[in-house]
Amino acid sequence: MNHLLTQISPLNKDIMKMVALRQNQLVKPIASLGMLEEYAEQIAGITEELYPRLNGKAVVVFASDNGVWEEGVSPVPQSVTAAQAANMTYGKTGISVLCAHADANLYVVDVGIKEEADSRYIIRRNIRKGTDNIAKGPAMSRSEAIKAMEIGAEMAQYCFDRGAIMVAAGEMGIGNTTTSSAVLSALTGHKAKDVTGKGGGVSEEAYANKISVIERAIALNAPDPTDAIDVISKVGGFDLAAMTGFYLGAASLRRIVVIDGFIAVAAALCAARMHPLAKDYMFLSHRSAEPGYDPAAKELGLKPMFDLRMRLGEGTGCPFAFHVLEASVRILRDMATFEEGSVHHETRVDIRENKTE
Amino acid sequence: MNHLLTQISPLNKDIMKMVALRQNQLVKPIASLGMLEEYAEQIAGITEELYPRLNGKAVVVFASDNGVWEEGVSPVPQSVTAAQAANMTYGKTGISVLCAHADANLYVVDVGIKEEADSRYIIRRNIRKGTDNIAKGPAMSRSEAIKAMEIGAEMAQYCFDRGAIMVAAGEMGIGNTTTSSAVLSALTGHKAKDVTGKGGGVSEEAYANKISVIERAIALNAPDPTDAIDVISKVGGFDLAAMTGFYLGAASLRRIVVIDGFIAVAAALCAARMHPLAKDYMFLSHRSAEPGYDPAAKELGLKPMFDLRMRLGEGTGCPFAFHVLEASVRILRDMATFEEGSVHHETRVDIRENKTE
Repeated sequence: MNHLLTQISPLNKDIMKMVALRQNQLVKPIASLGMLEEYAEQIAGITEELYPRLNGKAVVVFASDNGVWEEGVSPVPQSVTAAQAANMTYGKTGISVLCAHADANLYVVDVGIKEEADSRYIIRRNIRKGTDNIAKGPAMSRSEAIKAMEIGAEMAQYCFDRGAIMVAAGEMGIGNTTTSSAVLSALTGHKAKDVTGKGGGVSEEAYANKISVIERAIALNAPDPTDAIDVISKVGGFDLAAMTGFYLGAASLRRIVVIDGFIAVAAALCAARMHPLAKDYMFLSHRSAEPGYDPAAKELGLKPMFDLRMRLGEGTGCPFAFHVLEASVRILRDMATFEEGSVHHETRVDIRENKTE
Repeated sequence: MNHLLTQISPLNKDIMKMVALRQNQLVKPIASLGMLEEYAEQIAGITEELYPRLNGKAVVVFASDNGVWEEGVSPVPQSVTAAQAANMTYGKTGISVLCAHADANLYVVDVGIKEEADSRYIIRRNIRKGTDNIAKGPAMSRSEAIKAMEIGAEMAQYCFDRGAIMVAAGEMGIGNTTTSSAVLSALTGHKAKDVTGKGGGVSEEAYANKISVIERAIALNAPDPTDAIDVISKVGGFDLAAMTGFYLGAASLRRIVVIDGFIAVAAALCAARMHPLAKDYMFLSHRSAEPGYDPAAKELGLKPMFDLRMRLGEGTGCPFAFHVLEASVRILRDMATFEEGSVHHETRVDIRENKTE
């Protein structure tokens, strides 16, 4: 992983300034396109192009099982991880449909599914058949965590090689809101109850149990909050580790990195802890209703684009974000300047300061 | 207008129930796609098709000038209305670019521009060269308001004839946040200062003046809050009136109606006051930062999809909403059911009640 981390470099500030300059000449009040303008600047800083084409889009879903499932943290059987991973490759799931709609490629990677996923289209990188139960010991060894991260980075390269400019990670793994809450609690110091939600649907009793399991896992494993790899290996999952490696790999390759919901934002925070510049490559798609989302987004210093009250996971927020990010670049490229639009420059208004120039 | 109002009928509740049933069989926790699921139901109720194709999309921009401009409510000269209306038809403005991105048609209608808009592609329906100053008298006569509404309804038919299933209205008219705030204040009884913002960019002094102008306009013209046509004719504008007629016309034709930001939501409220079923055909795209937006959305009983802090007007929030609404229908059509996905039905979880079935 160290080799990867040394390859992450700052955004190109010069080209970002050029974008800001052009945006302020477009025939509209200054800053009136809000977040679209910020996105276009950030995208230019990443791609080092003024008018990049963002045609290449990919979502990589990392699927794996979690030993903590045996504590009753989810009402859904583990067999669903394998079944849904296979379904994704056959176009049957939410993320399959939304990728098709957004004209994005979808790759599904088995990083640690317990049962056999019945599809020849799954990319097989199974580390082992699920992690261990974090309520009884560490989820995985440190070297396994690093191996999962390297698989994630490999998949970032895989997307790069196939022409993706915008990339995103999704996940499939019954029990992974539990590991994500545990990782966030360990990393940020927030109490388990403040960063734990009901995930894929649990009863009140099961919810109380979920919090208690997370508290026990952290007390037992004592992850080092200053070491994201230690936190992931002790209370995380293979999916979280692979996503973290994917984000770091994508940042090292100067790709636009779109972050999905709760599990993704936990992995994004791990990546940002491992390299502070990683977050400069990130865009948050949709807000998650899980209570751990907002503190994680806050530490990243990023705001989600929208909140459609979706809570399916799989990466399902990301295809919408692709559409918005593409629009931000088209605006920059195709809108006329005041001069081109034959509108007198003196009529230009600055929304931010409510002044006419 | 009365003829139009009689043609608006309820959503098809039977088909909405069929959609709800199918959505609960899709291979995901029940309700986990949040607003997408509500959208798909509403769309089915409108189109009376289970799996409608939403390829046809159109944005109609109504451009006109406002006599109240002479009170200093905007720092931008009125000539910008004509210049930008022309620019829209040449692909140069924000809405032009976003329509191209969303594969939507864009039609620009002159309902009352003051200066000559230099484009052969503008649809000419100029009622007269701008309204009168609402601070000194009514904006227009009642018959002019009805004429503008009929032009709006005509444009809904125009979109229908060209195959649009999803339609939206935008506007271009310097000073039209002032008239929109006046309409909202008059309709809802909220004080002018509570529904007035800084619009296209004004200084603190100009903002205070804007509020005072609106207060004077309402005091002087005494619009009847129970009569939307009276409110629009006394303190509104040709653009607002045309948008109101467009929304009513589109609802009568069972089209999916996407509402843009502040000015659009004021017109949407007028339409809903004229026919309560009109709002069943509406979808709010993006939230406006103007303080009048939230009360209007609340009365409509609708929530915006996103908030990208855009404040350009022109209809620029709508193309993004088209993309999301299309996705909601593709999900319904293309996702597998539990059975098709070979996932045992007993594993189905209901997000709303956090229970397993």
